[in-house]
Amino acid sequence: MIDDVLARIDRDLPAAVARLCDFIRIPSVSADPARSSDCVSAAAWLREALAEIGFSSRLHETAGKPIVTASMPSRGRPRVLFYGHYDVQPADPANLWCSPPFEPAIGRNAAGGETIVGRGSADDKGQLLTFVEACRAWRQAADGLPVDVTMLFEGEEETGSAHLGKFIEDHRAELAADVALICDTNMWDSATPALVVALRGLLQAELMVEAANRDLHSGVYGGGAENPIHVLARIVAAIKDGNNRIALPGFYEDVRPAPDAVRRQWSRMGLTVEALLGPVGLAQPSGERGRDLVDQVQFRPTFDINGIVGGYTGEGTKTIIPARAAAKLSFRLVADQDPVKIMRTLESFVAARVPFDCRFRLDVQDLTPPAEVDAEAPALAVARAALQDEWGCEPVLVGSGGSIPVVSLFKRLLGVDTMLMGFGLDDDRIHAPDEKYDLACFRKGTRTWARFLGRCAG
Amino acid sequence: MIDDVLARIDRDLPAAVARLCDFIRIPSVSADPARSSDCVSAAAWLREALAEIGFSSRLHETAGKPIVTASMPSRGRPRVLFYGHYDVQPADPANLWCSPPFEPAIGRNAAGGETIVGRGSADDKGQLLTFVEACRAWRQAADGLPVDVTMLFEGEEETGSAHLGKFIEDHRAELAADVALICDTNMWDSATPALVVALRGLLQAELMVEAANRDLHSGVYGGGAENPIHVLARIVAAIKDGNNRIALPGFYEDVRPAPDAVRRQWSRMGLTVEALLGPVGLAQPSGERGRDLVDQVQFRPTFDINGIVGGYTGEGTKTIIPARAAAKLSFRLVADQDPVKIMRTLESFVAARVPFDCRFRLDVQDLTPPAEVDAEAPALAVARAALQDEWGCEPVLVGSGGSIPVVSLFKRLLGVDTMLMGFGLDDDRIHAPDEKYDLACFRKGTRTWARFLGRCAG
Repeated sequence: MIDDVLARIDRDLPAAVARLCDFIRIPSVSADPARSSDCVSAAAWLREALAEIGFSSRLHETAGKPIVTASMPSRGRPRVLFYGHYDVQPADPANLWCSPPFEPAIGRNAAGGETIVGRGSADDKGQLLTFVEACRAWRQAADGLPVDVTMLFEGEEETGSAHLGKFIEDHRAELAADVALICDTNMWDSATPALVVALRGLLQAELMVEAANRDLHSGVYGGGAENPIHVLARIVAAIKDGNNRIALPGFYEDVRPAPDAVRRQWSRMGLTVEALLGPVGLAQPSGERGRDLVDQVQFRPTFDINGIVGGYTGEGTKTIIPARAAAKLSFRLVADQDPVKIMRTLESFVAARVPFDCRFRLDVQDLTPPAEVDAEAPALAVARAALQDEWGCEPVLVGSGGSIPVVSLFKRLLGVDTMLMGFGLDDDRIHAPDEKYDLACFRKGTRTWARFLGRCAG
Repeated sequence: MIDDVLARIDRDLPAAVARLCDFIRIPSVSADPARSSDCVSAAAWLREALAEIGFSSRLHETAGKPIVTASMPSRGRPRVLFYGHYDVQPADPANLWCSPPFEPAIGRNAAGGETIVGRGSADDKGQLLTFVEACRAWRQAADGLPVDVTMLFEGEEETGSAHLGKFIEDHRAELAADVALICDTNMWDSATPALVVALRGLLQAELMVEAANRDLHSGVYGGGAENPIHVLARIVAAIKDGNNRIALPGFYEDVRPAPDAVRRQWSRMGLTVEALLGPVGLAQPSGERGRDLVDQVQFRPTFDINGIVGGYTGEGTKTIIPARAAAKLSFRLVADQDPVKIMRTLESFVAARVPFDCRFRLDVQDLTPPAEVDAEAPALAVARAALQDEWGCEPVLVGSGGSIPVVSLFKRLLGVDTMLMGFGLDDDRIHAPDEKYDLACFRKGTRTWARFLGRCAG
């Protein structure tokens, strides 16, 4: 049976790629209010694609972007719940793309293999379609799915999943499952698959500092009026100390070391600075001094400034002291750090450093707690076997530096563990110009999910 | 004779205001390459206005914006050289203006007097026209000017006057004069005129920091890759210490106290924090701790960040570590600080703080040395008398926080001192939205120049 399904996937590959390209063409940028109707179109596209396969699928309005659900009953347990997101990152700066971000193009990776280039090709349109295409192949080659499958797709993952929690809460019965599945993570390398068993949390906030009630001439007011850019720079610079440790009081109090099994895996794989940073033109890790690279990028919390703007930023000069300046801040958190507690610490830290005559505003944009996956979960064993079958080697168990808010929502609201199996590669340039997804990852990812579904049924 | 000239100015005021409005309508923003042809139009407008009065006027091409010269010989000495600039600051953010920046409107000041609102209304279109209109009135009411007048107008003052030095050097004979005059400074208050006898210099540079060869996902690379926004923030924050002193090594070495006569004047006038900062919504000076307000804003060097940008600055969030970040820096300098020497110090200061894996570029945008005007110069005595006649009180001798590069060029290339007499007010909002020029300043400024020209002739 599984051989028929796999053969079907291979035969159907060109059509599957065409479907992915159709999906990428819809510029569903959730952060951009002007792309709001495109997000609706992407949701509708997905709903129809699932209906075509035979799923009973629905598009649900929310206070934000629509949510799509689909289900197809089968022989019963185990019931799997697959989650993905149809929204994508903004494409700017658009001029740095080699081809237009929403006109998918076939490219080549460093090894000469074919890639699909376009915003969302990997994150998460290409990845989520590996699961959808696996279901399609099962349905067409075997006349049905081997297990009960429910799917849940949201359109606000890139902006903090503001309405997902309430939706899950309101649809508990419909979403009930034995295990949740996500395909939004990376392989170890292009030959070695990986399973993510620890996820960092995320705290995102925008800090705005304001001083005078208007822009001032720096010749007249320089030395008199507070400069909000300088105040902002001083505050954000102070968040890390000279050893690159985060200087918020008590910040590391709740940090717990990563599980031993995961750390052992990492040590065995020998991540090198050259392998991680070389391709992006860097040579020295910027994290906490005295920690090794794996800790710095996977198991320790981090702080980054994702954007900053203030005053005159056009060509040439303008001698002003601006009225305000703002920065987008983000912290990656690890177990058992609490984003709400750290947000309060950040607020006090900023308040203590804002001089008289300045006001500040700290707008929370994301509060995702860190999450861990039980290394002994049965689905993990099934996934390891499926990956071994398809890729010919044992998958690596990893901690992920990124954050997937839905994992803690599933645990809290549905009481279900999440298995994170993804086929992205580190050079996919997600969130950057020229995002791509390797065709081989798309094909073998689809085949892996097909094997997983088959093995789930026993 | 002078009474006829003054009467003529008053009678001609509505026509003079209409001419100023025409001039403001030309959006001659020198910093914006898209406004290049508008700068040429402003130069042509000025040349024609001067020809109409009877000046022999010319428009000179340069490698940048055109320069306009005009001359009208008279009974000989003294020869005065008037300098002004027809270029204006960018109008952005345009949405903060009450009326469109290049459609001049009549407004009201706090005391109910009429104002002309528009970009350049004060800086420097309105101010330079006070001199031009004074010449017009002399020519029409008295059939000629009482002294030899040469005028020089450039279009790159707001962007560093890159081509002015060479032009002056190439036109020494044509520009030869006994004294230079500039109308680009402020009154003490709306009732009390001022003469500027000390000007701060200006060093402007753009600092760009680069790290990775592309934008990175902060979940994958956070703790691994250097964040150029953080590096930039750390460097610019370090330029001032905890006492708001500039931390560049040797920065204060060449600072000389202001002339006694000037300092005495200031003490007498009793500048208050409330008067300077109250109207812009501030209450505490931000300058060097331990110095009084006058020192902070007039006689001591200052540092400001005029703009900063890096990473994602749109709506919502984007979890990236950007490839680069940049800030526009400016230092106001006082005698005898050397901008070139300080630029080199800044470069070393930055280089020492850029971590491994980051590169930086420091682009010089302006290097204007500070300047002083001889308090005993004969033209100063004439100006004091003219101001006393028109305004009914002694003018205040002040140091200006702003920088007028041409003053040191005139001294160095033509060997001539510059007399700075202006009719701007502190609430004119130059370089900011809703820039305005009081109608009373325009009228009485014109009358003051008419008196000055008459008194010059003896």
